[in-house]
Amino acid sequence: MLSTFQEFSKQYKDITEKQLIEYVSRLHSPAVLKEAMAYSLNAGGKRIRPLLIYAVLSSFGKDPAAGIPAACAIEMIHTYSLIHDDLPSMDDDDLRRGKPTNHKVYGEANAILAGDALLTHSFQLIAEAGHPSVTPEMKLELISQMSKASGAEGMVGGQIADLEGENKELSLTELEYIHEHKTGKILAFSVLAGAVLSGAGEIERKHLERFSFHLGLAFQIQDDILDIEGSEEKIGKPVGSDLDNHKSTYPSLLTLQGAKKKLSEHIGAAHEELRNAGFESGLLHDITDMIGNRDH
Amino acid sequence: MLSTFQEFSKQYKDITEKQLIEYVSRLHSPAVLKEAMAYSLNAGGKRIRPLLIYAVLSSFGKDPAAGIPAACAIEMIHTYSLIHDDLPSMDDDDLRRGKPTNHKVYGEANAILAGDALLTHSFQLIAEAGHPSVTPEMKLELISQMSKASGAEGMVGGQIADLEGENKELSLTELEYIHEHKTGKILAFSVLAGAVLSGAGEIERKHLERFSFHLGLAFQIQDDILDIEGSEEKIGKPVGSDLDNHKSTYPSLLTLQGAKKKLSEHIGAAHEELRNAGFESGLLHDITDMIGNRDH
Repeated sequence: MLSTFQEFSKQYKDITEKQLIEYVSRLHSPAVLKEAMAYSLNAGGKRIRPLLIYAVLSSFGKDPAAGIPAACAIEMIHTYSLIHDDLPSMDDDDLRRGKPTNHKVYGEANAILAGDALLTHSFQLIAEAGHPSVTPEMKLELISQMSKASGAEGMVGGQIADLEGENKELSLTELEYIHEHKTGKILAFSVLAGAVLSGAGEIERKHLERFSFHLGLAFQIQDDILDIEGSEEKIGKPVGSDLDNHKSTYPSLLTLQGAKKKLSEHIGAAHEELRNAGFESGLLHDITDMIGNRDH
Repeated sequence: MLSTFQEFSKQYKDITEKQLIEYVSRLHSPAVLKEAMAYSLNAGGKRIRPLLIYAVLSSFGKDPAAGIPAACAIEMIHTYSLIHDDLPSMDDDDLRRGKPTNHKVYGEANAILAGDALLTHSFQLIAEAGHPSVTPEMKLELISQMSKASGAEGMVGGQIADLEGENKELSLTELEYIHEHKTGKILAFSVLAGAVLSGAGEIERKHLERFSFHLGLAFQIQDDILDIEGSEEKIGKPVGSDLDNHKSTYPSLLTLQGAKKKLSEHIGAAHEELRNAGFESGLLHDITDMIGNRDH
């Protein structure tokens, strides 16, 4: 089972990365813009969001390839958000996954514009998706939901709340608002995109929605734990930065032990939703374990 | 005729501005984000892009109201581009239409994120457009074309080329590349959006495409002329800034007289395309004259 997951994961990670570069190389645009876009798309990462789309499609017995444009679209949005978050006026980070951040290499103006271009292109990918099983209505639902998940009511709203909460003692409710929006909504959209493309029914969607909610929080709690216990080499950025920045985190609000307990509860609840969803979801159970146990 | 145009223009400018604010006020987002988005959407301007959509629809005898979501989408994209262009790392402008620029009021991080949110929301507006005459296929074509016009192959590409060309003597070809992409593609998309929503045929589209090409260049040449001859009060920013910044412009490459001649040629060619297009286009002729004669 685990080996099936690893093969599946490797296969679709490769397909996604190749396709992302193909999309950018096709553009008729100034060279520096294409380079800056490709630089951050190439920076690696686990490609968890694309993997979620493919895994949902596969769980419904559909062709995972139907999810390639949407998977690349989400990865472009995720990448743009990292580029903009790293800017001097935001988190002012010099390193991302062990490499200099986009603005450190290309300058601030090009970094902002590379982010803008990635965000803009993501919608085109979905609008032009060519797989025969993808209907116009599916594409429009994906575009509408992707905009909600990544815009003012989703990721951008979460980033604003995160910046507002800096150097402030947050309540657990405020912290969860930030994470549910800043990272949760896009993870949830990835799962939803797989469900839309699979033609999932209302009940299956409900279970998947609650599954994503728990998965998203688990993801973020693990992120906070890794900032304390992780290895700088594996994470690709300095550990302990949250503490240095006096940032409210799950461990700071709940103690490290309490955060680990909460992580394990959300992982358990995510598995539970999958078990009740009534379809074959081995790959989604595996992704859940991967998120619970990840070390970078 | 002129009074019809002025009434039409006033009516749909008001509708657009009201609708833009309505879209933002509906968002469930942190207050400062909504304020920053509304601030720049409210900053006035001629709303030429929305007007082009409505005028094309009206020329085909269609209900201009079918274009409201697309018109608001384009105005959001135009507004986001102004917010990002004004940033310290780009043009570093303190004033826009006589008001402090977005980052001067809300800070750089919020300004970047307000721009990101406007761009993201624009695609949702088109995906969720409710007018009964708008089909899913039309929406997908609009989304695909809007992404092309505003992204790496359009406006963002033009802005990159503009930044690269700063403090450099440009050829007329390089200058036209910048303008065709930075401002021309979005103006052309506005016309195309009206054509798509009107169900225009291939030949009509061809004429409208050439019409937009000339209109876009005329618009930019007039912009350059106004930077020399305009009134600071009417433009809402200091005149002479291109000269101070050693920026290549039509007057700097062609002399002021030569630029005026070129403006008048493009205005003439735009009218000519409309006359040959074979449909009733009084409003489009009026917009063309407005662009040729504008003083701000």
